[in-house]
Amino acid sequence: MTLSDEVRIALDGKWRHVREQSRKELPALDLAYDHSLTLEQARMRGLEQMRKLVPTGIPAAGFRPENGGTGDPGMAVTGIGMLAQFDLSLMVKAGVQWGLFGGAIENLGTKKHHDLYVRDLINLDLIGCFAMTETGHGSDVQSIETTATYDLATQEFVINSPTPSSRKDYIGGAALHAEVGAVFAQLITKGENHGVHCFVVPLRDKKGKDLPGVTTSDCGHKGGLGGVDNGRIMFDNVRIPRDNLLNKYGQVDEGGTYSSPVDNINRRFFTMLGTLVRGRVSVGGSASAACEVALSIAGRYALERRQFGASPEEEVLLMDYRMHQRRLLPLIAKSYAYRFAQNQLTARMHRLQTTDAPDAQESRELEGRAAGLKAAQTWHATKAIQEAREACGGAGYLAENRLTTLKGDTDVFTTFEGDNHVLFQLVAKELLTSYAQEVGGLDPVGLVRFAAGTVADVVKERTAASQLIQRLIDARPGKSDDDHDLLDRGAQLSLFEDREQHVLETAARRLRRADKNDPAAAFAVFNAAQDHVIRAGRVHIDRIVLEAFTAGIARCENEEAQDLLRDVCSLYALTTIEEDLAWFMGHNRLADTRAKTVTSLVNELLVKLRPHTLTLIEGFGVPEESLGAEMLNS
Amino acid sequence: MTLSDEVRIALDGKWRHVREQSRKELPALDLAYDHSLTLEQARMRGLEQMRKLVPTGIPAAGFRPENGGTGDPGMAVTGIGMLAQFDLSLMVKAGVQWGLFGGAIENLGTKKHHDLYVRDLINLDLIGCFAMTETGHGSDVQSIETTATYDLATQEFVINSPTPSSRKDYIGGAALHAEVGAVFAQLITKGENHGVHCFVVPLRDKKGKDLPGVTTSDCGHKGGLGGVDNGRIMFDNVRIPRDNLLNKYGQVDEGGTYSSPVDNINRRFFTMLGTLVRGRVSVGGSASAACEVALSIAGRYALERRQFGASPEEEVLLMDYRMHQRRLLPLIAKSYAYRFAQNQLTARMHRLQTTDAPDAQESRELEGRAAGLKAAQTWHATKAIQEAREACGGAGYLAENRLTTLKGDTDVFTTFEGDNHVLFQLVAKELLTSYAQEVGGLDPVGLVRFAAGTVADVVKERTAASQLIQRLIDARPGKSDDDHDLLDRGAQLSLFEDREQHVLETAARRLRRADKNDPAAAFAVFNAAQDHVIRAGRVHIDRIVLEAFTAGIARCENEEAQDLLRDVCSLYALTTIEEDLAWFMGHNRLADTRAKTVTSLVNELLVKLRPHTLTLIEGFGVPEESLGAEMLNS
Repeated sequence: MTLSDEVRIALDGKWRHVREQSRKELPALDLAYDHSLTLEQARMRGLEQMRKLVPTGIPAAGFRPENGGTGDPGMAVTGIGMLAQFDLSLMVKAGVQWGLFGGAIENLGTKKHHDLYVRDLINLDLIGCFAMTETGHGSDVQSIETTATYDLATQEFVINSPTPSSRKDYIGGAALHAEVGAVFAQLITKGENHGVHCFVVPLRDKKGKDLPGVTTSDCGHKGGLGGVDNGRIMFDNVRIPRDNLLNKYGQVDEGGTYSSPVDNINRRFFTMLGTLVRGRVSVGGSASAACEVALSIAGRYALERRQFGASPEEEVLLMDYRMHQRRLLPLIAKSYAYRFAQNQLTARMHRLQTTDAPDAQESRELEGRAAGLKAAQTWHATKAIQEAREACGGAGYLAENRLTTLKGDTDVFTTFEGDNHVLFQLVAKELLTSYAQEVGGLDPVGLVRFAAGTVADVVKERTAASQLIQRLIDARPGKSDDDHDLLDRGAQLSLFEDREQHVLETAARRLRRADKNDPAAAFAVFNAAQDHVIRAGRVHIDRIVLEAFTAGIARCENEEAQDLLRDVCSLYALTTIEEDLAWFMGHNRLADTRAKTVTSLVNELLVKLRPHTLTLIEGFGVPEESLGAEMLNS
Repeated sequence: MTLSDEVRIALDGKWRHVREQSRKELPALDLAYDHSLTLEQARMRGLEQMRKLVPTGIPAAGFRPENGGTGDPGMAVTGIGMLAQFDLSLMVKAGVQWGLFGGAIENLGTKKHHDLYVRDLINLDLIGCFAMTETGHGSDVQSIETTATYDLATQEFVINSPTPSSRKDYIGGAALHAEVGAVFAQLITKGENHGVHCFVVPLRDKKGKDLPGVTTSDCGHKGGLGGVDNGRIMFDNVRIPRDNLLNKYGQVDEGGTYSSPVDNINRRFFTMLGTLVRGRVSVGGSASAACEVALSIAGRYALERRQFGASPEEEVLLMDYRMHQRRLLPLIAKSYAYRFAQNQLTARMHRLQTTDAPDAQESRELEGRAAGLKAAQTWHATKAIQEAREACGGAGYLAENRLTTLKGDTDVFTTFEGDNHVLFQLVAKELLTSYAQEVGGLDPVGLVRFAAGTVADVVKERTAASQLIQRLIDARPGKSDDDHDLLDRGAQLSLFEDREQHVLETAARRLRRADKNDPAAAFAVFNAAQDHVIRAGRVHIDRIVLEAFTAGIARCENEEAQDLLRDVCSLYALTTIEEDLAWFMGHNRLADTRAKTVTSLVNELLVKLRPHTLTLIEGFGVPEESLGAEMLNS
């Protein structure tokens, strides 16, 4: 086995067999996006491609055996991520059908729904959509306006869109293919609103015509994802049977009486949302997968393309320029870091979702990590794919070299499944309220109201969970020993942890100043600290990622691969510190002289890693022949 | 007049009448990009739209009166920039025809070429392309491989593509519409290569069929610019008359003897390129124009859209969130800064290009600034349009709201007319070699070889040119007076100047260490310092831009507008300092305590500017009805 193989095995993690299967099977399915198609043709092709996926077993993996699936959520998420290496439209289309729509049915529904829908939706005998977002409310889902009013007389729910802003919007599948929707609406019975619930609402007949009272329309062209038929839905008092309420977390009996295992309306809502965590795990993983493709393309190009040099006969490889190394290698290192973090997240999600009674605290933590990692990974993808495009110059701008398609397709990932700023705010909120509060709303005032007395032990608690991390931190050399202690993992971990703790503590201190009983004043305090709060979420995730990378290296069984990964990990750690260097200096975590060594250490790592560029690219495991970039074939 | 009007007048600068004319005339021409068209239809539409521009007088402005133009280069550049507010495909198509192709004819050709081509190309009776870049060489144009060999027997040049990598590539117009090309090739006569020259080469007959020996092909779909028919050209020993050499800077007589007014082959090449500076000025200005549209859309959306709040009845405007202000207002401030810099650049270019004997030193300076500002503006556009897209969430991803089109269309601007990294390197080189050397090549070793003994006076020289700047710097309060001195313009200017001087000096010191006679060693020294060198170009432009903003405010005649612009300028200056805070701290330009005030001063400015958001957007002068974003109409 080559070093590339060893690195790939380490990166592939627990669901390596799924990755290997996808690498083998997916290229044969001819999944690459075709720009010569019209919008209509591209969407039809997307649907046909989806049908080819059914036999791979990936769709069934996402569902429990008793419902007709094979009960392997880790496989489902990994498999979706592998699709992202081929065609993001297909990934999204599959994610909507099996992840979001199917996930809503399985996790919010009960046996009657499982029996009725799960087998059909796995096999695509039933195509659905996930109708949550409205024109007026995206980030603040709790405030959506669609109503589901129980009509005692007919024992039906009446689904209605009372205002223009209550229109369901951007819904994948709503423009054309979805026959039914998992529709989120305010459940009202006996004149009382019990908050947002999910309902199965038939949308189209078998010929694709809107059913009475349903008006769908088309979002048209987008920045990418041409194969996804995003659309809008308006409901004009559409009647559905009482049984169409997905009633795991809220039930209305024949007489119109509401009951729920979760009393608090906020907690109930966030419990429901929490069951849908897989969507965020998939989006983060898919963004990273697409990003790895882009970096593979740009990296391989930089290993072929020459420009300038000491003489025309000795033109220099792009990858041999310091600037080019600076542009690409830190992004590759960060992609490695996120892959290890994603593997860890997937494993935790798998464990929790295959346990009969998952721990509530652990579930909350998982949600926080999934939210934060989704934000971190999708922003990284946006930045890295852009850099990859630019690093390939004019060739990078041609669709035949795929980078612009990767860019356009993944661009919306920073928005869907939660706007990234809102997600980091959510992460911070979970930390600042010490996971202790029942009320998990996203409203700013709530954050102020429930700011914890202290956050001091949050970091420690989490760190203590991993003895390896603690050992490394304890063993770090003293601050003054040697400039090179910045290459020590314990020193890096300690810097990351220290920063997180400080940012969290100072954020908490600012929030606590507010008069909690005056909403306007509370909002003002929150608002003045908003960038600080979001930063808290971001630095928390930085730490989680470095820990995951560290743990991943420890699990690698090949020494040579471990050595290489250690350098990659240091490049990730040091470039992350470099990006925030003013903070470390201003807060006396790095003296001026020590701070100056960060950049030279980064440059030393670039020199050290340059000869391994191809190995690192091959480690991503995107077969060269499936990169789909014409310029690499010439 | 409203404050918005006063601000707009200040921003519009000297060619305000052109901007006002465009705002009035262009909307009627129905120029918005139409995503429902096929590639073929979009390209045909682009050509038709171009014909509508002829009567506006913008095309003729770019040419000298004696050649059939109206001799107003400032108008030409401003007019092209205004097109960018409507459709970037059209802007590029127009830029290729009248700027690049027409510019090559006028600036590299002589009277016989002017008489033969200029009137026709203004009126679109002759459609051309600019065939410089090849598959193998883009940044390093001097190394292109296409040959133009003089055949004494027939008194013709033979144009040939000797290798696959000598194929002309990404050429706007080459796929379909160009009838002739301004083709760059190595001029060889009597067995000697005299370097790159430009030739008029017929490509297609009137029916659009390739002429004998010419093989064009299509670059197909791209990341954007669907209306531009980018293509490739291969020449198989195509014969053209001797007169088709654009012979202002190099002539071959009937007997095959070469002569040129510029002896040095490198200097000759860069003199020729220098005459084409208008291309970079146009691209930078157009990127900024597109960016202003994106910020206008996202800014207006943020002033309409509400999400979250203390209660559902009191949802908060996006623009009232600190984070949203942080995201958009500094980008708006930077766009203001670049507009003033662009106005200054345009005026200088206009002056030099309407002078009979332009000063060589001034011309070199202009080229450096045009290169650097192009890089700065196009990167700003890429970043700001991306942020604008994300700041509009799902709506931002729909083509009907235009942001993704602006993103895709402008994406390649960081690449064409020179890769931005290479351009900043060029800027640095001009500074590091004190404009003194005849050899203006871009090769790294040349940079090392000619690194100036000292750069100490470069900054001073340039600063002395502007007495206002010097007065402000001299009048700045002492460093220790008061934290708020960071709001003092003189203090800001001094920090920018100081940083530039230091970065330049240390870069020069590093380069001087090299053994200039050992190319490999010289390359190694250059390479180790490459990020430092590029940084020198970047911080130079930062300073130029701050000075231009300062000068622009001084020229503004309305006091209220001046006051507002002062705050915007400080926001630009302080966010620029904030981005590089670690440098200012590490180099003892800002003590830790003073550094910490930067962020709070930025936040204070955000609070102060928030009420003026709409005024600042209106100051850009993009009429609301021509923004072309559906979401703003609901």
